[in-house]
Amino acid sequence: MWHCDEESEKELMSAPKPHEEIFADWLHFDPLVVRRAVTASAPSLADNTADLDRLRRALRQQGYDPLRVPPGELGAYANRFRQGNFKATAVLSFTGDGWELTELFSGTDQSPVFGVAVDLGTTQIAFYLVDLITGQLLDRLSVPNPQISYGEDILTRIIYASTPNRLLLLQDLLRSTLNETLSFLADKHGFRVSQIYALTVAGNTTMTHFFLGLDPSRLCKEPYIPVANTFPILHGTDLRVAMHPRGLVVVFPNVGSYFGGDVIAGILATGMHRTEEICLLVDVGTNAEVVLGNKDWLVACAGAAGPALEGGVVERGMMAQPGAIDRVRIDPDSLELTYHVLGDEKPKGLCGSGLIDLVAEMFMAGLLTIQGKINTQIIDPRIVVSENGPAYVVAWADETADGRDLLVSEIDIGILLKSKAAMYTILNIITRKVGLRVQDIHRFFVAGTFGSHIDPVMAIRIGMLPDLPLKTFQGMGNTAGRGAAMTLLDRRLLGDMNDVRQRITYVELNVNLELMNEFRGATFLPHTDPKLFPSVTIHPRAMG
Amino acid sequence: MWHCDEESEKELMSAPKPHEEIFADWLHFDPLVVRRAVTASAPSLADNTADLDRLRRALRQQGYDPLRVPPGELGAYANRFRQGNFKATAVLSFTGDGWELTELFSGTDQSPVFGVAVDLGTTQIAFYLVDLITGQLLDRLSVPNPQISYGEDILTRIIYASTPNRLLLLQDLLRSTLNETLSFLADKHGFRVSQIYALTVAGNTTMTHFFLGLDPSRLCKEPYIPVANTFPILHGTDLRVAMHPRGLVVVFPNVGSYFGGDVIAGILATGMHRTEEICLLVDVGTNAEVVLGNKDWLVACAGAAGPALEGGVVERGMMAQPGAIDRVRIDPDSLELTYHVLGDEKPKGLCGSGLIDLVAEMFMAGLLTIQGKINTQIIDPRIVVSENGPAYVVAWADETADGRDLLVSEIDIGILLKSKAAMYTILNIITRKVGLRVQDIHRFFVAGTFGSHIDPVMAIRIGMLPDLPLKTFQGMGNTAGRGAAMTLLDRRLLGDMNDVRQRITYVELNVNLELMNEFRGATFLPHTDPKLFPSVTIHPRAMG
Repeated sequence: MWHCDEESEKELMSAPKPHEEIFADWLHFDPLVVRRAVTASAPSLADNTADLDRLRRALRQQGYDPLRVPPGELGAYANRFRQGNFKATAVLSFTGDGWELTELFSGTDQSPVFGVAVDLGTTQIAFYLVDLITGQLLDRLSVPNPQISYGEDILTRIIYASTPNRLLLLQDLLRSTLNETLSFLADKHGFRVSQIYALTVAGNTTMTHFFLGLDPSRLCKEPYIPVANTFPILHGTDLRVAMHPRGLVVVFPNVGSYFGGDVIAGILATGMHRTEEICLLVDVGTNAEVVLGNKDWLVACAGAAGPALEGGVVERGMMAQPGAIDRVRIDPDSLELTYHVLGDEKPKGLCGSGLIDLVAEMFMAGLLTIQGKINTQIIDPRIVVSENGPAYVVAWADETADGRDLLVSEIDIGILLKSKAAMYTILNIITRKVGLRVQDIHRFFVAGTFGSHIDPVMAIRIGMLPDLPLKTFQGMGNTAGRGAAMTLLDRRLLGDMNDVRQRITYVELNVNLELMNEFRGATFLPHTDPKLFPSVTIHPRAMG
Repeated sequence: MWHCDEESEKELMSAPKPHEEIFADWLHFDPLVVRRAVTASAPSLADNTADLDRLRRALRQQGYDPLRVPPGELGAYANRFRQGNFKATAVLSFTGDGWELTELFSGTDQSPVFGVAVDLGTTQIAFYLVDLITGQLLDRLSVPNPQISYGEDILTRIIYASTPNRLLLLQDLLRSTLNETLSFLADKHGFRVSQIYALTVAGNTTMTHFFLGLDPSRLCKEPYIPVANTFPILHGTDLRVAMHPRGLVVVFPNVGSYFGGDVIAGILATGMHRTEEICLLVDVGTNAEVVLGNKDWLVACAGAAGPALEGGVVERGMMAQPGAIDRVRIDPDSLELTYHVLGDEKPKGLCGSGLIDLVAEMFMAGLLTIQGKINTQIIDPRIVVSENGPAYVVAWADETADGRDLLVSEIDIGILLKSKAAMYTILNIITRKVGLRVQDIHRFFVAGTFGSHIDPVMAIRIGMLPDLPLKTFQGMGNTAGRGAAMTLLDRRLLGDMNDVRQRITYVELNVNLELMNEFRGATFLPHTDPKLFPSVTIHPRAMG
């Protein structure tokens, strides 16, 4: 079982973390923005180079070439360089094809240089504060997307934003939340927002449109055409962000309407685009997004597999928040059940990992048949018949927050099995599309809160993840935020994001007979073909 | 004798000219800003490229790559492209290392694209209005530099501008004059200032500092360090110029305090930086600036030779304005004098070419000795003795505007001879510095109003210009304005201006014994060494 990333679920809850958390062995610490001392000899009749050209020459000698000096700062920079007796401290930003002289201080200056990575999610917006001098991840927090009051789901918001004024309003909501949070971070850590020199922003295509004030109306209408998929490097002043006005705003590019910058950032976070080995990344959100490939090729697809896996849809399902049962164990002999609750609270429901654990453990104990039916012939007080039919009591009324039995019905289990079947089918189809077998997957990254919480042993037991060696699987947490933060630390990723965007092939999953047959087999526990899951021993009682 | 460019002297006097006037055979018509139709197929499920990326792709296919889209226009451009059913008209600007999409119109648009070249002179500001679609020079006018009321000479203005507010005031004066003149041109020709998409600005180093609001105070103090010699490409909005806000403002780079963008533009105007042949450019203003070289090397120097040659300093000298005698002829036998006056007016004084003609003709007729003394032994009513000593009557009281005899004294002639000697000495020294003889000069460009008016035959007779074949000499008019206008028409000059700046070697003329001896010989008519002027036949009477 891998690290369970609880903090990411809590609003404005943050804690210093070592930068290793967003580091990877292939990453270079070459940040997007650097602070450099710059010195030149004083002018003389023998070397009468102009002040600003003298500064440029000294920076060019350090490798900052080509170097763009902001038009409004020519005089100010030259003056500060001279005032410091031709010693200055430069803040330089990488723009992909060169450098910008974002700020210049007279003499020696030790003022900090921060970057913030933003994962612009539909529900939550996550922030990563990074010290670009040390490479340390100083803080991490997430806040609700303020647009939620205009629509929980993205489609409602797209429809709402059908007039320019309303689009502006939704953009302003994002800007306000961004600016409040950046100010909060600055206050908390005792710096000025003008010391934030870089912002990397990864969001799905719709959120990216809202952020940039672009009309999203055609994202949900055939043929699903975004206004723009690639963006120039912007500056704080362009978007009125509470940061250095000449600081960089890097917006991750989209592949298309249904494949956004958040997934591109996710790919960067795994490093799969730089490895020889074949990797698979699955990100379960509203859709399950799957990317397969390595440094030579990348294919991607998406399908509806998500909500049930994240704890949505099923009756007592919930987000992985305090009060959620996230772990379940059932002794196959005594049928004794134990669970773990997030936070110091009484249970309110089950989050995705709790639900997967429950179904896996019930199946192992023979309480569930391979068809996903509750084995009502077994004498177990937890097996009851509710108004929705057969059900299983996870927690008794005297243990729960609301004083009612916490039941999971056969119908709930059926919903989960359909989701896991969809996920498994998508993984299989995309693998087969490129002429590979799932066994060829060398590393399997599971992104999102979901990925941080689920136990691959359990996910294999229910036939959601393929039966690969456990070391293959790696929970990644918020890959979009992580990829955006890594881009702050390693400027090569500015090129990588465009390379990945151009290299990726998006595969449409057409609903056809083959897919439906495959899906039907995958709704079983673990599958109609047990040879696909050799590690899963089926309890005799489960044979139904 | 070459074309006399009278219009350039008149305020707000302008006339359409064919673009050949600023064209040259080596110039390509590849303007800085182009208007291009751009078409793409409509999006479909098979080609779901985003609107803006579709536009970029279509422009990239036309060769506009890399292409920068202004951050604030992403949505507007995408929208206009779609509204025009994926047909649009793009206005694209070249920035040296790529293109900017400056404007986009829906569908087919025939609105004009103008550029304006500005010669930012200390006394006069000259404007050249160019149609960038046809390459035609539509208009040309010049207005007085509004800073004159804060100092006729540049030094007074530099001293005045010693506080930030005063510097801002001098900058604002330039901006107002620029904007008024651009509005005047737009009104006169029936277009909007937002249809001016490019401005090329060539000025001396001080004027360039004023234009950009840079502190000029160190330009006149040892070691003479400008704030900046090279400038990024600016946009209309950066300087609040009355033009398209995203239109380009190209400011010519300076070589140093005493060698500005106006001379760089002048070099471009001659094309000498692109020829095999050795060329010399001399620009007579407050200083005489001399550039020698070809496509492989360029050397430059400057020296005080100017005012007398332009009609300043000498008592009855004046600018080449109405009322100025610009041509003089004296019959060597009858000693009869004829003159030509600029405009339909009575003579007020002599401009530079008139003064040079007068001295050359007096010398040819033996009225002046080789030492520059008036030959008072000759019986000629025009030879008189004034309160300033010997003098010559060019026009009698009943012919002149002020009803007084128009006299030129021996002292005046002495001043002219010192100026011409300084000029000749500079030309000789720079030529010898690079190991050449003046005879190696293949083309000899004379810039400025001065260059347009003087007659090389006369200038050779007095020993101001070297005794080269007449076809060697070419009057260029305003080379700074011409070079700036050519840059609008041929975008390669954007690179040329920086190449020239970097290649040029500035030679300091140290006042030493060699220079003084050389100078002394050159104050004679035409020179102490007549072998240097084989074409000049000396009248026996002139032998003194």
